[in-house]
Amino acid sequence: MFLGMLYQGLDIGGTKLGVAIADATGKILAQDRIATEAELPAGPQIEAALARLAELEQGLRKGADLPPCVALGASCPGPLDRRTGRFLDPPNMPGWHDFPILERLQELSPLPSAVMNDANASVLAECYWGAAKGAEHAVFLTMSTGMGAGLYLAGRLVEGRAGLAGEVGHLRLAEEGPVGFGKRGSVEGFLSGPGILQQAKAEALRCEQLGEATLLRDAGLSTESFFAAVRAGDAAALRVRDQVARRLGQLCAILVDLLEPELIVLGTIAIQHGDLFLEEAREWMERDALPASAAGARILASPLRSRGDLSAIAVAHHKHQQ
Amino acid sequence: MFLGMLYQGLDIGGTKLGVAIADATGKILAQDRIATEAELPAGPQIEAALARLAELEQGLRKGADLPPCVALGASCPGPLDRRTGRFLDPPNMPGWHDFPILERLQELSPLPSAVMNDANASVLAECYWGAAKGAEHAVFLTMSTGMGAGLYLAGRLVEGRAGLAGEVGHLRLAEEGPVGFGKRGSVEGFLSGPGILQQAKAEALRCEQLGEATLLRDAGLSTESFFAAVRAGDAAALRVRDQVARRLGQLCAILVDLLEPELIVLGTIAIQHGDLFLEEAREWMERDALPASAAGARILASPLRSRGDLSAIAVAHHKHQQ
Repeated sequence: MFLGMLYQGLDIGGTKLGVAIADATGKILAQDRIATEAELPAGPQIEAALARLAELEQGLRKGADLPPCVALGASCPGPLDRRTGRFLDPPNMPGWHDFPILERLQELSPLPSAVMNDANASVLAECYWGAAKGAEHAVFLTMSTGMGAGLYLAGRLVEGRAGLAGEVGHLRLAEEGPVGFGKRGSVEGFLSGPGILQQAKAEALRCEQLGEATLLRDAGLSTESFFAAVRAGDAAALRVRDQVARRLGQLCAILVDLLEPELIVLGTIAIQHGDLFLEEAREWMERDALPASAAGARILASPLRSRGDLSAIAVAHHKHQQ
Repeated sequence: MFLGMLYQGLDIGGTKLGVAIADATGKILAQDRIATEAELPAGPQIEAALARLAELEQGLRKGADLPPCVALGASCPGPLDRRTGRFLDPPNMPGWHDFPILERLQELSPLPSAVMNDANASVLAECYWGAAKGAEHAVFLTMSTGMGAGLYLAGRLVEGRAGLAGEVGHLRLAEEGPVGFGKRGSVEGFLSGPGILQQAKAEALRCEQLGEATLLRDAGLSTESFFAAVRAGDAAALRVRDQVARRLGQLCAILVDLLEPELIVLGTIAIQHGDLFLEEAREWMERDALPASAAGARILASPLRSRGDLSAIAVAHHKHQQ
């Protein structure tokens, strides 16, 4: 069995560290995960993850004639300083603040290493092995605890002057609205998990004041219980869902008018619940964007299983190709 | 004197056709212009322009040992179908509708030929010889009778799936406002020449209704007389100017958050009157964009003399390099 070369990936998230080994076709040969301790120093956790990666590789090689691992890639929560390879201040991960992730990987691993924020890593994974395979112009939207974009344009990853391109979460969609990225009415306010929760809580409060029955109850409300209420047909939850779809459509119209991508691929929340809002978002997008550009742009949830792991592998693949 | 090779350029505008010959350093060796007849068929006018180009070249070669012309480039008013090289429907140029400009250039000229919309041609000219020399990430905004963007990102021209990327004029900045690109509250409504005029006329009408004296008088109001009123300190004109600066800042914030360019270069109106609104626009941009991205982005009027001619030459240079 010819596999080409192998890559090692490290997917750093707020709740878990994913480690994986895959070949150049995106086939994962081994993977595991370790819980992230967001409050504790990053160093020992990264060390443990790389030790686990080494064990996985040893296990794979037992009795098998495998090609070598040629690069290590890490997909990281933003913001990340692209030039120095340091975390800036990943939300809710105080122990990881200012951690020089690239430098540490280079010390700990014999492989050429690279780091990238998860939005950029994800758009590469979609281009190599996912929905954007063969595309020249694709956008990835994380739609998770934050809302970042990875831009792949004219056949190339677009990172901006200092690696800060794609901060769509900071765009203002309305003068009023929920707060995200420190800005009222921003994309992150309307479309991230915490932003959706803000809108659901405000709607729950409004129902309480009006005496309207709803499944949205402020105490215990989570992204999951919110989408469960939408699925149950709760009127208040549906109003919030409509708002999310409309604002997502508005964002996609901006991206389509400005960049004319072939597709916009969405992550986490859209993978789990996109059936509840992606079609409506597309309709809003079509009302607002240039017809020719809108007609040529698909909007869909990422089809990649093990998306986080593959994003990290994509960083390694990208590094190796340069 | 070594000049490298030479390029021929044809700058197609609503009022004139510019023709020029230049070397690879952007030095123009000969140029001329012919009035455009927007109502009349395009074919004979293009023929006349190319004949004038041939005369210019003959004149240059008399007694001089010049290197050969290696490519012909045309900068065209949008919208343009990139794949077929046809005009779609350039505003106010009925005789040019659906004209197959690329095909005709290829028939009439022995040189390899290319066509591009003026926003894309202009960002290339800035990258080769203007404010964006050496930059990897630059945006050009036409700010003329329309408002298109040319995107040069990660060291490459970004044209989108079918060549429609950069249609910033179609972005909505507000629910209400002047109409441009068929859309109320759009970038083109607020920031193009006709859009600025709409706002000035509305303000003139308001002054008339309130009995407030103003230099803005609906009859005879033009972009030029509007900016003259701003320079004269007219209160109503200054209110419109403030609105233009604010909306331009809002657009620049979107571009900066999304693309993190090193610079945003502006054309026509900003070249003539940018001293009246670019600094204010920058302040508005800084209020709205991510501080790190905003700090790294310059906003300025194009420094290129003969900008239109050089844009056409840039199309030829780009064609020759491919």
